Amino acid sequence: MSTPPFKQEPHKLLLIPGPIEVSDEVLFANAHPSMSHVSPDFIPVFGDCIRMLREVLFTADGQPILVAGSGTLGWDQVASNLIEAGEDALVLNSGYFGDSFAACLETYGARVTELKAEVGAAPSPADVETALKSKPFKLITITHVDTSTGVLSDAKGICDIVRRVSPDTLVILDGVCSVASEEIRFDEWGIDVVLTATQKGLGTPPGLSVLCVSQKALKVFETRRSPPSSYYASWKRWLPIMKAYESGNAQYFATPPVNLIYAFNASLKAITKAAPSLEDRFKMHKEASQRLKRALEDLGLRQVPLDPAFAANGMTAVYYPDGLVASDVLPKLNKDEIVVAGGLHKDIKDRYFRIGHMGLSVVDPSRGDLDRVIQSLQHIFG
Amino acid sequence: MSTPPFKQEPHKLLLIPGPIEVSDEVLFANAHPSMSHVSPDFIPVFGDCIRMLREVLFTADGQPILVAGSGTLGWDQVASNLIEAGEDALVLNSGYFGDSFAACLETYGARVTELKAEVGAAPSPADVETALKSKPFKLITITHVDTSTGVLSDAKGICDIVRRVSPDTLVILDGVCSVASEEIRFDEWGIDVVLTATQKGLGTPPGLSVLCVSQKALKVFETRRSPPSSYYASWKRWLPIMKAYESGNAQYFATPPVNLIYAFNASLKAITKAAPSLEDRFKMHKEASQRLKRALEDLGLRQVPLDPAFAANGMTAVYYPDGLVASDVLPKLNKDEIVVAGGLHKDIKDRYFRIGHMGLSVVDPSRGDLDRVIQSLQHIFG
Repeated sequence: MSTPPFKQEPHKLLLIPGPIEVSDEVLFANAHPSMSHVSPDFIPVFGDCIRMLREVLFTADGQPILVAGSGTLGWDQVASNLIEAGEDALVLNSGYFGDSFAACLETYGARVTELKAEVGAAPSPADVETALKSKPFKLITITHVDTSTGVLSDAKGICDIVRRVSPDTLVILDGVCSVASEEIRFDEWGIDVVLTATQKGLGTPPGLSVLCVSQKALKVFETRRSPPSSYYASWKRWLPIMKAYESGNAQYFATPPVNLIYAFNASLKAITKAAPSLEDRFKMHKEASQRLKRALEDLGLRQVPLDPAFAANGMTAVYYPDGLVASDVLPKLNKDEIVVAGGLHKDIKDRYFRIGHMGLSVVDPSRGDLDRVIQSLQHIFG
Repeated sequence: MSTPPFKQEPHKLLLIPGPIEVSDEVLFANAHPSMSHVSPDFIPVFGDCIRMLREVLFTADGQPILVAGSGTLGWDQVASNLIEAGEDALVLNSGYFGDSFAACLETYGARVTELKAEVGAAPSPADVETALKSKPFKLITITHVDTSTGVLSDAKGICDIVRRVSPDTLVILDGVCSVASEEIRFDEWGIDVVLTATQKGLGTPPGLSVLCVSQKALKVFETRRSPPSSYYASWKRWLPIMKAYESGNAQYFATPPVNLIYAFNASLKAITKAAPSLEDRFKMHKEASQRLKRALEDLGLRQVPLDPAFAANGMTAVYYPDGLVASDVLPKLNKDEIVVAGGLHKDIKDRYFRIGHMGLSVVDPSRGDLDRVIQSLQHIFG
């Protein structure tokens, strides 16, 4: 795509853990003239999103599913398609999003066992192994990065444990805050579902629930005894649609968010076809993260994740220094035209804040986004 | 909003029954820079959408609910929040969308009675009355305009029957293809839920499920014996969010489609604050519809709706003349840079096509959209 004759309006620098700063190209695509959702012009745009998502997740035959909705809808898709009433699910809880995924699974009839870590940690490998051995779980859920704590879970390590001690258990990775900012090897690690959304590492406005489902999980789905327990989230409805768009045809179940698909396509193109490569993208996120985290440490600020090895590379959750509260800090950043996020985890809500560093702000250092926020933080806390 | 420095790209004229042609202002709003979903700048944009939607539906205290998703998600919201397992629902079927709404209700445990009309008709008032007297229905659903047939149901007349013979039955109006192109008097007619989407009469790209719920329906919801049977569609989750945004605060359940909310706001402003008035808007849709339908009649084309009094004002479904099929007609329109829609109703799929005439193409005659399609049709069939 050539550079469009479009420049987005001046605005405050958005450094929250999603939505993130979005490129002019992506916003221009979101302003595409209205198109029929079954038009021959639109079909390959949708089909290419499916194909490029596979590249981002390093999968040969994972089945992408793109449905209008928030990231949360991904939980409903997992729960209503893969769980039948009374089946067991193991939820690894590293913050707010574990609690909510558990509530969603229960809504659709799962018996949920939660492994809750203390705030700032993820459940230990030993606890995961013990739990997996205690009964046959239909699925296990991992919050790859819990946006409420900035804790990064060891997705690969957990996949290894599952394969070793409970190979029938499906591995569900909540990658809302990790896809395209943390390395994910769908096939190699043996993941069965990645669920995510467009407004974080994928660099697109919010409004699309994005999933990738393994052939193994599809077989489990296809041999369900009861019908899926949701209508809108039912893969029975969506799989034929995804297959149709990918093969160059259109089929109708519900009108897709046409403009957002154009925008997603533009962002996926930048991620998969332009520099940096995916490997370099992950590396740049790691480097940017370490730079910001070091700067905060130098200022004496303590991070929420207890183990630096398991802190997200796309966001930083950090406590206010003793004696300071949100209103001492966030308005000052705001005065510097920088938007960060307050706390979300109920146990520590008022004691910390969150900085997002994903996508453009990281892979295009010429923007100077990271410099700006570090300077502003140094000015406030230095 | 002043005229933005933005002009959408040249494109084929989109005259399908949704998505429809969208204004430059709305597309420019859809390209708004990324914003935090809890930012003080964004909160009133969301709050105003809620307030303006009430104006469009002529309701004082209906509760709007705006959730990322396709229009279809509105069915899940109705079924999972208002139906408990084993309760009876009466579905008035005037085409494809009645079948699907019934399937959705059954997914969430409803016992569905369908009143099926012949293709081109809606169930008769006498049949509706008889059915309502046969057992106590928790709710009745009406497809206001069935997009597959272009049949307009007599929503007001059915509301009157319900109030007279079964006043506890909730009236659910599927207004996906009618809101802002057909008159709807939420309070006066006694409607309990209107469900719709943004990409038709509301003149915005697709991706938002839009509902308005009566206080009576909310009471029924609040006194459910079982929890809502969906997580993502649960009003228990969404009602506090809607109330927060309307009162000038933000609360988090799932990230709203921020850019689309800006776009929806821009379109609602045009609908509620600028000329034509809502009454004139309905009148213009009626006049445009009659003009197109007369032109088709003059060309000897027969419409799908059997009774002209119950044909939609925002779309026209019309049979090909004897001996002609889609490939004789649609490519010719396409050559004139006009996109219309093929058939959708399974019984007559290959025998008819559909023309949308909602929103901009109708309320701004200076665009000449209607002239263009009529001329093209006269050229093809004349």
